Amino acid sequence: MPITVKALQKTGPDQPFRVVEIERRDPREHDVVIDIKAAGICHSDIHTIRNEWGEAHFPLTVGHEIAGVVEAVGDGVTRYQVGDRVGVGCLVNSCGECSECEAGFENNCLNGNVGTYNSKDVDGTITQGGYAQKVVVDERFVCSVPDALDFDVAAPLLCAGITTYSPLATWDVKEGQKVAVLGLGGLGHMGVQIAAAKGADVTVLSRSLAKEELARELGASRMLSTTEDGFFEEHRGEFDLILNTISADIPVDSYLGLLKPRGVMVLVGLPPEAQSLHVGALIGGRKVLTGSNIGGIPETQDMLDFCAEHGIGARIETVSVDEVDAAYDRVVDGKVHFRAVIDTSTFEDAPLAD
Amino acid sequence: MPITVKALQKTGPDQPFRVVEIERRDPREHDVVIDIKAAGICHSDIHTIRNEWGEAHFPLTVGHEIAGVVEAVGDGVTRYQVGDRVGVGCLVNSCGECSECEAGFENNCLNGNVGTYNSKDVDGTITQGGYAQKVVVDERFVCSVPDALDFDVAAPLLCAGITTYSPLATWDVKEGQKVAVLGLGGLGHMGVQIAAAKGADVTVLSRSLAKEELARELGASRMLSTTEDGFFEEHRGEFDLILNTISADIPVDSYLGLLKPRGVMVLVGLPPEAQSLHVGALIGGRKVLTGSNIGGIPETQDMLDFCAEHGIGARIETVSVDEVDAAYDRVVDGKVHFRAVIDTSTFEDAPLAD
Repeated sequence: MPITVKALQKTGPDQPFRVVEIERRDPREHDVVIDIKAAGICHSDIHTIRNEWGEAHFPLTVGHEIAGVVEAVGDGVTRYQVGDRVGVGCLVNSCGECSECEAGFENNCLNGNVGTYNSKDVDGTITQGGYAQKVVVDERFVCSVPDALDFDVAAPLLCAGITTYSPLATWDVKEGQKVAVLGLGGLGHMGVQIAAAKGADVTVLSRSLAKEELARELGASRMLSTTEDGFFEEHRGEFDLILNTISADIPVDSYLGLLKPRGVMVLVGLPPEAQSLHVGALIGGRKVLTGSNIGGIPETQDMLDFCAEHGIGARIETVSVDEVDAAYDRVVDGKVHFRAVIDTSTFEDAPLAD
Repeated sequence: MPITVKALQKTGPDQPFRVVEIERRDPREHDVVIDIKAAGICHSDIHTIRNEWGEAHFPLTVGHEIAGVVEAVGDGVTRYQVGDRVGVGCLVNSCGECSECEAGFENNCLNGNVGTYNSKDVDGTITQGGYAQKVVVDERFVCSVPDALDFDVAAPLLCAGITTYSPLATWDVKEGQKVAVLGLGGLGHMGVQIAAAKGADVTVLSRSLAKEELARELGASRMLSTTEDGFFEEHRGEFDLILNTISADIPVDSYLGLLKPRGVMVLVGLPPEAQSLHVGALIGGRKVLTGSNIGGIPETQDMLDFCAEHGIGARIETVSVDEVDAAYDRVVDGKVHFRAVIDTSTFEDAPLAD
């Protein structure tokens, strides 16, 4: 029997959210039924459901930063049991058989993975996200949330946390290194905390210094404005790694100039247009330019464990289900510091839409 | 007492080479005097002495692919003795104290290294290269040439060899991997041999298939034309690493599409103009785009040892000192397969210019 749950749904890009009932599939052998406690609002949710990234499949429920408690499990589930604290991020399926899946990089699945919402699942249905009371997910895509992390603080880790943790782990950021984080939004504020917890000396780069105090609270040693006269000359060759979390055009060559020889610039923000790159900026000093996109499930679990161990969580404000439209506008205006998270217990008293 | 030797010199970018006498410095405490047996002709020599890379310091002798025999050593030299077979590449000095020099990457010296020719040395003189009978070099920048490598085959390894070996070693190319080498000139033909010796399955990419037989002889399993219809779609996601040795504009995004997830594209050719890059081509599948520029001295020694062990050398044609002007034209026309090397014994009978 499918499970009926309340969820936030839009019927079109310009419609408001409304509370409706949707059906979750009857749990299969390896499925976990999760009672959702918190669902983070990611900028990707907004881009998707406002049709800014192409055609969304309406009616649609978004949300891929999900934390909650296991309520039931399929007969074949071995990793989780009822009552476990768990989380689900951006992925809910992949082939499980290709070299990338076998290497733990389901995010790179060669046969195409299935996103947590707005994706066609293997059974042909369109996946529906975490702005809901419950979700049913294959245990392969469920992570354990350590007790040290509250649900609302943990939820955004499943996207913003892994997106920044993965490159910092891949490129082995460590004590004694200088790391710059470009942009201090939902992604940047996680990157700063993780890099600082790994022992790096962290500088936040931004046009404005408005969030300087917040940057220091998160673990940065300083914040610098990239619009200062002579900024790129003054800080030439300073950093071992630059993590770019902004999605606007950037002068790539100039940023590569801020790296030490053999330094690495990781792009997790996606500028819409092509960027200009002089190859000499990579050849001189053997610099590395790379991108990163969320992470695989094993490293997502590593990230949760790391955050719990180091007392790291997203800085959040909680919103109720009737405040999500307003929260979207505040996210777009850059007024949420740093993540809005839906308290899904507020579904209970929310009236269903007509 | 300075040492007087015959050398090939140009007095201006459009002048022919002439045989003149130049002075090498009286060997200092840590200097090695090398009796040059072979000097490779690198495309960089041509760019430099034709003023295509900015103002050269005339009169100038070029050449940074040098192999020969130790003829004398300074009192403080510990690594070499008279009679040793040795080589010198693109560098003859660096600070020796910065973090890059200490890590064995003198090519990245933070205080600026000294090139083998056309560079200002620490004593203020302009360095003069290897198209000469002898050269005097600090032992720190001298490598040992194994007996298994003939001098004329070894000389080009000091630039073309290390330029391709360094990235293939840095990115740990190994058995079972698929490597593409873009371009089959002086650099490419070394890259193919080294990658194949490391056990990779090597594909040569080029516009034309004219050198297909040569590619196979060098160890490639196949050669593909990049101008075939649908080339970039057909070979999407095939390669672990692409080594780009050409210096023309390339469609970077399309080449990144040829990489597997987590694949690496290394640029050792330097296109003169800025290239266009969509960041999404790096973020999707976490691709790496990087450059590389020769290598440090320890890895240059590793490269020579590796080549000797695997029977790898440059494919060369030997020219005498009076044939260098003609050889330059043939290099520029792509008619040398793959490296012209000056037999420096031909200096002996060459008449001095008036």
